[in-house]
Amino acid sequence: GSHDFRYSSRVVTLPGLIHVNAVDIELQKVPSHASVGEIVTRLTSSALEGGFSTICISLSKEKCQNPEDFEAVLNEADSHALSNFMMYANARPGNAAVIAPLGAVSGGLKIQPTKADLKQSSGVDLWMDHLSQWPQDSPIVLAASGRSLAALLFAMVVSKREVHVTGVSKKEDISLIQASKDTGLSITCDVNVLDLYATENSGRISRQDQEALWENLDVIDAITGPSSLIVPLLFDSVISGRIDLEWVRSKLYDGPCRILGLSRAEDESIVEIDIDQSWEGPAASDVAGVPCRGYVRRVVNNGKVAFLDGKIWAEKGSGEEARAESQLLKKSPSIRRLG
Amino acid sequence: GSHDFRYSSRVVTLPGLIHVNAVDIELQKVPSHASVGEIVTRLTSSALEGGFSTICISLSKEKCQNPEDFEAVLNEADSHALSNFMMYANARPGNAAVIAPLGAVSGGLKIQPTKADLKQSSGVDLWMDHLSQWPQDSPIVLAASGRSLAALLFAMVVSKREVHVTGVSKKEDISLIQASKDTGLSITCDVNVLDLYATENSGRISRQDQEALWENLDVIDAITGPSSLIVPLLFDSVISGRIDLEWVRSKLYDGPCRILGLSRAEDESIVEIDIDQSWEGPAASDVAGVPCRGYVRRVVNNGKVAFLDGKIWAEKGSGEEARAESQLLKKSPSIRRLG
Ligand SMILES: [Zn+2]
Ligand SMILES: [Zn+2]
Ligand SMILES: [Zn+2]
Ligand SMILES: [Zn+2]
Ligand SMILES: [Zn+2]
Ligand SMILES: [Zn+2]
Ligand SMILES: [Zn+2]
Ligand SMILES: [Zn+2]
Repeated sequence: GSHDFRYSSRVVTLPGLIHVNAVDIELQKVPSHASVGEIVTRLTSSALEGGFSTICISLSKEKCQNPEDFEAVLNEADSHALSNFMMYANARPGNAAVIAPLGAVSGGLKIQPTKADLKQSSGVDLWMDHLSQWPQDSPIVLAASGRSLAALLFAMVVSKREVHVTGVSKKEDISLIQASKDTGLSITCDVNVLDLYATENSGRISRQDQEALWENLDVIDAITGPSSLIVPLLFDSVISGRIDLEWVRSKLYDGPCRILGLSRAEDESIVEIDIDQSWEGPAASDVAGVPCRGYVRRVVNNGKVAFLDGKIWAEKGSGEEARAESQLLKKSPSIRRLG
Repeated sequence: GSHDFRYSSRVVTLPGLIHVNAVDIELQKVPSHASVGEIVTRLTSSALEGGFSTICISLSKEKCQNPEDFEAVLNEADSHALSNFMMYANARPGNAAVIAPLGAVSGGLKIQPTKADLKQSSGVDLWMDHLSQWPQDSPIVLAASGRSLAALLFAMVVSKREVHVTGVSKKEDISLIQASKDTGLSITCDVNVLDLYATENSGRISRQDQEALWENLDVIDAITGPSSLIVPLLFDSVISGRIDLEWVRSKLYDGPCRILGLSRAEDESIVEIDIDQSWEGPAASDVAGVPCRGYVRRVVNNGKVAFLDGKIWAEKGSGEEARAESQLLKKSPSIRRLG
């Protein structure tokens, strides 16, 4: 078919890429007075430009502390989205019962202990209720490291949950996750592309930690980071032979589908990447001068051209909440197939 | 037989009690210039006075950093012990391989992260080698709380080990251990008798934490603390009906045997406790004024009277290293039975 791997040709076609944790740098570029709608338009626009047809986002904690607020935010997001999206609910101490109903409408539950949380409790008791009360069929995403991560993973074992760990960047964390997988525990993880490619000068990550990530490529289930850099950094490594195209597809599509519990819609959304073009990572970034390759030429989303030759064609509101979309596809797998 | 429970009579007879972690207060009374022999004589003397025929000790870390030193200490201990004893090896960052051979001669491995250890590493990587290299048939004892405890328990899961947690005193810790046991994990724990009985004025433990310990009596596998106070504090609660004698026997004999992997030798060592006598906890202690009951009248150890009517009868060196003794008993179960 037209979207099989055509590795030897000029253009590589992949199913629409999925970003399981599109936050950090993208959000820093958004003006502080921006509305939810403006933020979502901005994030989903960057997503399409980077080749992603679905992104998972989590907005500021204050706005989403109860189901009513969350659903209002979700509605505003839905009317402004250019790509598909999911929104994570945010676990906060004491809100386990209040947010549990969001399991059905959110992308999952994000547990990200703040410094204040770590001070408030010496253990994991702040999050035990979340692990037991969050619906089993909705993902739980942990943003933690070191002892906090290990402790939360133990809470996960006790609660008999699967979890996803986001932004793994330490040797000891990736080793622990590897050992967990070897033991048969249901853990997945993503690594920020910047941690794989950051230069020594950037000071972002130690050489030892970076090496450990590269030595554990098969432990990684998804790649996250700035939407604009993921494809170019990974594709240069594909061309140089450090990783293969199957690995990239696995970390940007198959893995995310599994993590998020999304049904596959590879005929509805695709991305075409021109691998002839090469350049260098932006001077002001952690990947200054790092070789980049792979220009996103076209993104088709939900059966329509959403991005082509540098221009967004998708209209505001054409992006769908992907959980609902996925439920829809499960019910009627033949709707709106790509011609 | 003569050592069945005689709850209605003046004297209760139990198998020789076993103390799985005889440290803290006892060691504070020992002069700082004391030799290993003097320390062991002192600790085992307190043990017998308190009704214990076997105690587990861990001496200062510097003295036991390699097998030669450890065995020298063990020999000096053996020639000075009045009660049976076991010595824990001490896990230190980087010594996993060096001390692994001590599995055969020690009581087990104690992992007790110091503040410096917690600063040095944000995770559990300092102890992963210990968990994987320490012999499977020798116990591992964790002295940790909160995130450190949860993290070490996760390391345990990954390493497929059983562990014992010593000195549990927090609500969140006992809850986590309870949840772990419910999940089917092989975890045991002990609680310091002072944490069960400390007065509010002592400031030793919060009311909430103390209540949580009492609400989880069936989660506790052994009782530790000052040898002189364990029997009197527990027996007053037996008489008042708060706990029963079977519980006490379970926490001071059956549980410790299971935790330490000792074969039972209940006909070789017994303790007789006079439950008529009552008094109050020492004024200068955390249990000032707390009702006490149960005077240790006689301890028979290894078939001989070791303590009777306030006087030590055991000779220095008559106490045996209990692991070796236990191996001996397994081979020849009929030796030296109590007449
Ligand atoms: Zn095809
Ligand atoms: Zn708007
Ligand atoms: Zn290296
Ligand atoms: Zn919509
Ligand atoms: Zn009997
Ligand atoms: Zn001596
Ligand atoms: Zn209370
Ligand atoms: Zn001896």
